Amino acid sequence: MGKRMVVIGGVAGGASAAAKAKRENPELEVVVYEKSGFVSYGACGLPYVLSGEIPGLEKLLARTPEEFRRQGIAVHTRHEVVDVDPDLRVLTVFDHGEGRTFQDRYDYLVLATGAKPLIPPIPGTEQEGVYTLRSMEDGERLLKALPGARRAAILGAGYIGLEVAEAFRKRGLEVTLLEAKDRPLPHWDTEVGDLLREELERHGVEVWTGVRVEALRGTGRVEAVETSEGVVPADLVLLATGIRPNTGLAQAMGVALGPTGAIATDEGMRTNLEGVYAAGDVAESFHRVLKRPYWLPLGDVANKHGRTAGSNIAGQEARFAGVVGTAIFKAFGLAVATTGLSLEAAQREGFRARKVFIQSRDGAHYYPGSQPLWVELVYEEGTERLLGGAVVAHGHGALRINALAALLHREGTLEDLLGLDLAYAPPYSPVWDPLLIAAQQAR
Amino acid sequence: MGKRMVVIGGVAGGASAAAKAKRENPELEVVVYEKSGFVSYGACGLPYVLSGEIPGLEKLLARTPEEFRRQGIAVHTRHEVVDVDPDLRVLTVFDHGEGRTFQDRYDYLVLATGAKPLIPPIPGTEQEGVYTLRSMEDGERLLKALPGARRAAILGAGYIGLEVAEAFRKRGLEVTLLEAKDRPLPHWDTEVGDLLREELERHGVEVWTGVRVEALRGTGRVEAVETSEGVVPADLVLLATGIRPNTGLAQAMGVALGPTGAIATDEGMRTNLEGVYAAGDVAESFHRVLKRPYWLPLGDVANKHGRTAGSNIAGQEARFAGVVGTAIFKAFGLAVATTGLSLEAAQREGFRARKVFIQSRDGAHYYPGSQPLWVELVYEEGTERLLGGAVVAHGHGALRINALAALLHREGTLEDLLGLDLAYAPPYSPVWDPLLIAAQQAR
Repeated sequence: MGKRMVVIGGVAGGASAAAKAKRENPELEVVVYEKSGFVSYGACGLPYVLSGEIPGLEKLLARTPEEFRRQGIAVHTRHEVVDVDPDLRVLTVFDHGEGRTFQDRYDYLVLATGAKPLIPPIPGTEQEGVYTLRSMEDGERLLKALPGARRAAILGAGYIGLEVAEAFRKRGLEVTLLEAKDRPLPHWDTEVGDLLREELERHGVEVWTGVRVEALRGTGRVEAVETSEGVVPADLVLLATGIRPNTGLAQAMGVALGPTGAIATDEGMRTNLEGVYAAGDVAESFHRVLKRPYWLPLGDVANKHGRTAGSNIAGQEARFAGVVGTAIFKAFGLAVATTGLSLEAAQREGFRARKVFIQSRDGAHYYPGSQPLWVELVYEEGTERLLGGAVVAHGHGALRINALAALLHREGTLEDLLGLDLAYAPPYSPVWDPLLIAAQQAR
Repeated sequence: MGKRMVVIGGVAGGASAAAKAKRENPELEVVVYEKSGFVSYGACGLPYVLSGEIPGLEKLLARTPEEFRRQGIAVHTRHEVVDVDPDLRVLTVFDHGEGRTFQDRYDYLVLATGAKPLIPPIPGTEQEGVYTLRSMEDGERLLKALPGARRAAILGAGYIGLEVAEAFRKRGLEVTLLEAKDRPLPHWDTEVGDLLREELERHGVEVWTGVRVEALRGTGRVEAVETSEGVVPADLVLLATGIRPNTGLAQAMGVALGPTGAIATDEGMRTNLEGVYAAGDVAESFHRVLKRPYWLPLGDVANKHGRTAGSNIAGQEARFAGVVGTAIFKAFGLAVATTGLSLEAAQREGFRARKVFIQSRDGAHYYPGSQPLWVELVYEEGTERLLGGAVVAHGHGALRINALAALLHREGTLEDLLGLDLAYAPPYSPVWDPLLIAAQQAR
């Protein structure tokens, strides 16, 4: 008889682990317990369902429970694992549908419990009209609320806040974006934030930065946001002030967390407990620039975690190579891509770092329809080692960030970047690729 | 008094060399002799002037002679250097404007004489209505011919042939593309050629492959192309069957050519003659995958050559890092990017090479408007060293080729590729970047 693999959480990391393990070792019994009503969906697509661009939440599903079943994987939604005994390898599961508790056993366990929104410690967040956006259920609630809403306030100008600001504008809402730091996308440097602010304002988003939110006003239903700079009327409030790894179960069973507060793993996604793996937003990654664990809760990372864990459980030898911190998102007409460290982050980490920021174009100067494009490079003084960078463009041109990510992967320098043979043709790039122009300027 | 730098040829490599040297060392006397009437232009933009998308040839100029003059660089157009005595460091120049010959001297010489079209050895190519496309003058001639033309035949389905096929269709011409090999873009593998053929035919281009052109029929003005497969009526014929480096002057003065037939240089773009440099389409580059000299006559390479030569002449120490053979071009709605070696080329070079070819998308499956995208990877069996690849997309998404180019630069493997932290968000990529999907499939 095959060994039994149990996966807790079936969204991205968990679904990947289950699918990969079963594919590589069909002898395995694979069971997925998912607390919510949905497995294997692209949570990153939620803002585009809210905007109306994607016609329904079901479009985000990568695999239905039925498809898992056909692959030989048992998927149980609305099943919450409430306790694990790692010595006996026994779990206690609460079935929300039937209202009953039962026990199960495992040989291999994958913790893929994801992350949950941080609720800011201010009065009034428990009222109706106040939302977060992490899960399909969050998406359902917001979709229901949108037709009756007129004025939205979004707390936090990170990825989710920025993406949802666009979605709400597309649905015709008035939108005020409230950010405690002095710029949108506060984890990156000022120039990118300035570009974002301009783009947001051009599309009718009110951007309030450097503002402290003090309370959500209302009598059971939210009516306004009280801030250090004044009151923002709002009949819909999105809390997008960050997330934290969902480590409750892991901690209760004795799984060690790392310095980031997420689960610590080795390169094979193994935790400190024999037979127990972690994958996705609940787990750390090794950061190849910082050379230490880092928490990068993104969908593509979760899938890689899951695939790595699944391979190893299936008896292969897979290693997750770590991250350099690459991300991209869309804010109206702008694609904003970043990788590695911002200048501020690099300096905070003790690097003697410098940056350049240049404006170029996404095509030859003479090519009709070519658009402005911006590049930031962050590098270490003296060694000229690359530490990070950003590309802001009008669309897929921002993917040139990937060349920079490839260099960061192996401690590349400005000289390495200048040596790259990058693709040039007038519709797609100036004759000097903007990355090269930035590198020249840095020298 | 400063040293005297003479540049022969002022289009891309030559113009870059002159500008860089003067900027870094203002003491230098810098003189550019250009045989044609134009300097410092983006020849890669010529197809888009022919199509009408760019409203005039003058838009392609990067710097006018007047702008060079303001920078302290003397530019002489319609001046042909007919002889160089490298022992005396004296050149003989023919001024086509004044019809006179004079001598000049140099301390540093840059040979940037470019490349010229190969004229196929068939009868009838000297007739009216037969064109090539390399220079601004070629562009002027074609622009004049277009309003009277109805049926164009293009000989050769490489970059120029493909780009001009699109331009001619946009001008309303009937277009037949004639290629001796069995597919468009014959230097690359079949799948990319198949995609191109489909795109060309969808846009009304007749594509004849595996066809031998025997003669251009006509009585002083071309009327048809005689081929092994039949006669193609044509009142306009473009010869796009390749180019060769313009090495006549170099050979006459004793400059050594390399194995490719272009000028051999060291990393600093120095030829075998003291004080003599080469840059641009007339010069070789070191190919980092093949580890030997290679001829890659592209605009971005020419600019890098020129910048390197100019830096060294100005007294700096600059090295050209070589190429991996990256290119991109537009064929109607498709962007076709390639880097390194095709499977055929790799096998011809003696590599035990394999390839994968996959279809993916340029966004998440659920993202509205996401388009198909294709990736080819070529790698060495056993070592899994990457040798080359292609990305075909609908636009800038093909720039993900640059991440592959970055890996080829340092002998990256499939494992290195799988380890890359690439940018993901639904509008720009599936959660597994198409490069990663291809690498997974190759394992």
